[in-house]
Amino acid sequence: MRHSCEHVLTQAMLKLYPRLLMAMGPATDDGFYFDFDYSGKISEMDFPKIENEMQKIIDQDVPLKKQVLSAKKARRLFTGNRYKQEWLDEIEKAKKKATVYWTGKKFVDLCSGPHVNSTGKIGPFKLLSVAGAYWRGDEKNKMLTRIYGTCFPTQKELDEYLRLQEEAKKRDHRILGKQLDLFVISNTIGKGLPLLTPKGTIIREQILKYEQQLETQAGFKRVSTPHIARTEIYKKTGHWKHYRDLMYAPFGIEGEDYVIKPMNCPHHYMIYDSRPRSYKELPIRLTEAGTCYRFEKSGELSGLLRVRALTIDDAHILMTEDQVEDEFALCIKMVDKMFKAFHLENYWVRLSLANPSDAVKYIADEKTWDKAGKKLEKIVKKSKFKYKIAKDEASFYGPKLDYMVKDSLGREWQMSTLQLDLFMAKRLNLTYADQDGKEKHPVILHRGLTGSLERTIGILIEHFGGAFPTWLSPVQVTIIPITDKHITYGKKVLAQIKKEDIRAQLDSRSQTTSAKIRDAEIQKIPYILVVGDKEVKNNSVAVRRRGKKKITSLKLPKLLSNIKTEIDKKL
Amino acid sequence: MRHSCEHVLTQAMLKLYPRLLMAMGPATDDGFYFDFDYSGKISEMDFPKIENEMQKIIDQDVPLKKQVLSAKKARRLFTGNRYKQEWLDEIEKAKKKATVYWTGKKFVDLCSGPHVNSTGKIGPFKLLSVAGAYWRGDEKNKMLTRIYGTCFPTQKELDEYLRLQEEAKKRDHRILGKQLDLFVISNTIGKGLPLLTPKGTIIREQILKYEQQLETQAGFKRVSTPHIARTEIYKKTGHWKHYRDLMYAPFGIEGEDYVIKPMNCPHHYMIYDSRPRSYKELPIRLTEAGTCYRFEKSGELSGLLRVRALTIDDAHILMTEDQVEDEFALCIKMVDKMFKAFHLENYWVRLSLANPSDAVKYIADEKTWDKAGKKLEKIVKKSKFKYKIAKDEASFYGPKLDYMVKDSLGREWQMSTLQLDLFMAKRLNLTYADQDGKEKHPVILHRGLTGSLERTIGILIEHFGGAFPTWLSPVQVTIIPITDKHITYGKKVLAQIKKEDIRAQLDSRSQTTSAKIRDAEIQKIPYILVVGDKEVKNNSVAVRRRGKKKITSLKLPKLLSNIKTEIDKKL
Repeated sequence: MRHSCEHVLTQAMLKLYPRLLMAMGPATDDGFYFDFDYSGKISEMDFPKIENEMQKIIDQDVPLKKQVLSAKKARRLFTGNRYKQEWLDEIEKAKKKATVYWTGKKFVDLCSGPHVNSTGKIGPFKLLSVAGAYWRGDEKNKMLTRIYGTCFPTQKELDEYLRLQEEAKKRDHRILGKQLDLFVISNTIGKGLPLLTPKGTIIREQILKYEQQLETQAGFKRVSTPHIARTEIYKKTGHWKHYRDLMYAPFGIEGEDYVIKPMNCPHHYMIYDSRPRSYKELPIRLTEAGTCYRFEKSGELSGLLRVRALTIDDAHILMTEDQVEDEFALCIKMVDKMFKAFHLENYWVRLSLANPSDAVKYIADEKTWDKAGKKLEKIVKKSKFKYKIAKDEASFYGPKLDYMVKDSLGREWQMSTLQLDLFMAKRLNLTYADQDGKEKHPVILHRGLTGSLERTIGILIEHFGGAFPTWLSPVQVTIIPITDKHITYGKKVLAQIKKEDIRAQLDSRSQTTSAKIRDAEIQKIPYILVVGDKEVKNNSVAVRRRGKKKITSLKLPKLLSNIKTEIDKKL
Repeated sequence: MRHSCEHVLTQAMLKLYPRLLMAMGPATDDGFYFDFDYSGKISEMDFPKIENEMQKIIDQDVPLKKQVLSAKKARRLFTGNRYKQEWLDEIEKAKKKATVYWTGKKFVDLCSGPHVNSTGKIGPFKLLSVAGAYWRGDEKNKMLTRIYGTCFPTQKELDEYLRLQEEAKKRDHRILGKQLDLFVISNTIGKGLPLLTPKGTIIREQILKYEQQLETQAGFKRVSTPHIARTEIYKKTGHWKHYRDLMYAPFGIEGEDYVIKPMNCPHHYMIYDSRPRSYKELPIRLTEAGTCYRFEKSGELSGLLRVRALTIDDAHILMTEDQVEDEFALCIKMVDKMFKAFHLENYWVRLSLANPSDAVKYIADEKTWDKAGKKLEKIVKKSKFKYKIAKDEASFYGPKLDYMVKDSLGREWQMSTLQLDLFMAKRLNLTYADQDGKEKHPVILHRGLTGSLERTIGILIEHFGGAFPTWLSPVQVTIIPITDKHITYGKKVLAQIKKEDIRAQLDSRSQTTSAKIRDAEIQKIPYILVVGDKEVKNNSVAVRRRGKKKITSLKLPKLLSNIKTEIDKKL
């Protein structure tokens, strides 16, 4: 339906702008777009006119019909359109037939379909935006104009979609990040290198604190390693061959080449390798929130979501082959608890396998890939995940489980990753002495708990629209004295709250109470406590819970116990 | 006296090895050394013979006498000695007179003194070691042989010195670091890049935890920043001009130059600069344990004490000029608390000033240097520190207080640093709006709490000889069940201890109790709890406190309360 709607858009555009050359236009996950070559300017101001023309075509309920013909014949249908001719060149080269779709008898496009039977079947639609796009995504080609739109079976669904789009715009973490003073991207420091402000750092630390709590319970041991290493080690691991595009250029120190690390693995392996290991010590679970550096094109950087410096909450479990299932189960449980704390409970798992015939992308060893893939699929099945298999999405050293997580606006994010590595220990000659005294290579599980702390903070900002649950809120409580004479009492309240390790502030600025409340609401602080004569007299506080109209009068111990429960339970 | 003893050594050496060429030999802080050119091999095996010859010269009580003469005449005294001739070339070039010292009539050396009157005044001495050293420290020159020695007024002082030297060798943090499994230097990762193991990381985190507690009380706010930045910013700050020798080579990203950060300052400044600031917000105290990268020659690297990756417990306080004294007082108090927790209470402060005429080393602005230096001296005087002024030891951007700390072996280490910076805010145009609405530049205090966490851990390992106070010990308690049937009770005890956030382990290996106790002693675990029939029956534990012979039987709650007090008070 969306694809058909895109044909209707193209037809309408050609009617309104006859000199326009249509290039291409597919359906996407939640709509469609259409690229065209036009020397004039078309803006969102023109959308009503275009939508009007589209509606006419839909109302006429024109039939859509497929026709298969030789490329040579098809060429005559698109005389003068170099984009369609280029397409047909390829079809001809591949010795295939061309498929076109006719909308009635006036409009035809090169397209392999499928489509609805007639334009009347197209539901409520809306054009969304206009942007520039290179022909075939290649910046060496001509810049075309692209119109985005969408359509849905019912008006209700379209409205809901548009509402979520609006909401997503409001929740843009780059805007909220500035408004809530969470992070800074400074061109002086560099693109894609976020600086976390004091408030952003609190969120980071709270996430880490909870992760470390889960890890300590599960027997993980934290390590601490530097951010550079000799290029040599990445040649040994294979990063240099399979991962180099994402690595930065090396720099020399006294004749040796060093590079800023793209992953934490080798650093952890060298700790493992620093003394002989026995099977009795396994599994060894080393963990570190290690900042790694990976190349992203500047055009693709976006706030905290696409960065060049990312802190991976990274663990490497080195174990015997027998321990693989238990260790995966341990990590799977940990990831689940983490997502619960983030109120992100809707996810599925992508079982990402290799394409072992691609020796540039993957270590070439089909047998080991097969073994690892099967092992992982067994684990996935046992865990009763919703899962999909994706070929050619593995790490270069092993297949993996990637967690695909839906946020509160229904958008999907790739977060945690659990990777099974049967290659690296052998490659680096990491060993342990087995029960019979023989040297063996451990199996390695690479675990990114959320994957990247920066990205996670970005996702959480948008997921919560900045209104973080209390445990993550940089300021958990603000105290507003009604007049200056209530400041003394406010300070007393502040001291009592701080004693409980709750993050609180006293707003003693010389502003009106309503202005202070408004500011606290903009800052999305979970608890606003107003204190005036009545509160001083009753030794209480007037509590405004974020997002609720009702004001409750409470004794402080009762409030503090409520807040502490909420924090402990990560509500 | 030590210098005179060095002359005696030289004279003795010439007698024993007449073909030897003497090069040079000064007195040092705690002894002396003598460099010479000799084709044969001289080892510590030869020390008794040499010491014997020296003692003869001392017993003869030969007078030492100064003679001033022209360089030309002096040359005749050192015919055939190209080292002395080279020295005399310089004296001649500078158009100065030469000074020599005669020991009796047989031995003479080029030397500006001073010396004792006669060799009999030289106290008990000892030769210590022999090593290679380049002439004038330049590796392009010939490698000479160097003999180290020392002497003291009394035998008792010499013995104490030798005992401390012995102790320092035993406490070498590189040896203890391996034995206690605290850190790893891996040539695969790179020289001077320590990897902290799980146990080393616990020490790092405990230090940071305490520092952060002190900082939170004092109103510091933590930030989190990446480890690279555009080279451009270091050109603006002046690092590129004044600090480049310590920085690594830049690498390119999409046509921009980036470099791994040698300091955290610019990253913190850009957070300050991310929005307009008012005088009401000042002082702003930003803090971060930020890992920086500085060049050290590979020959000068040493375990954790000289590294290429150092984590600075770094803060930058941006404030009005009025606030400088209070903020210094705040930091001075914090440093003092930190040292108390490290049981390092013996320190003095070096007031390090610039030499503003050296425009390569310092920002050229004599007036501002003068102002900053005076301000800092006033602060030092008010704080009643023991202090010394050191010219030409400042940072390129300001004078500073460097803490010189004595460890348990009486050795002195440079640790914390508090630096006053009147330049950088102006240079980077960092501003705040003053009370009258005018834009002003804040004053900056750079604070390294211990200076470098890696170095601090290294110093503490040697200071405590690995026997850390309980709050820093990676394992605080080990439980040793006498036989397998006591393991169940041991597990119960372990669970109760862990509930109190005390780091404990159960040693359930199949080894004898005495072997387990010995291992725990080697690991310098503060508390060893042995549990057997008696303990199970009485619901108690048999406690061996580290370093004490006595075994005490205690109920667990009593023991835990003791340990917790000890940890809280950092005893």
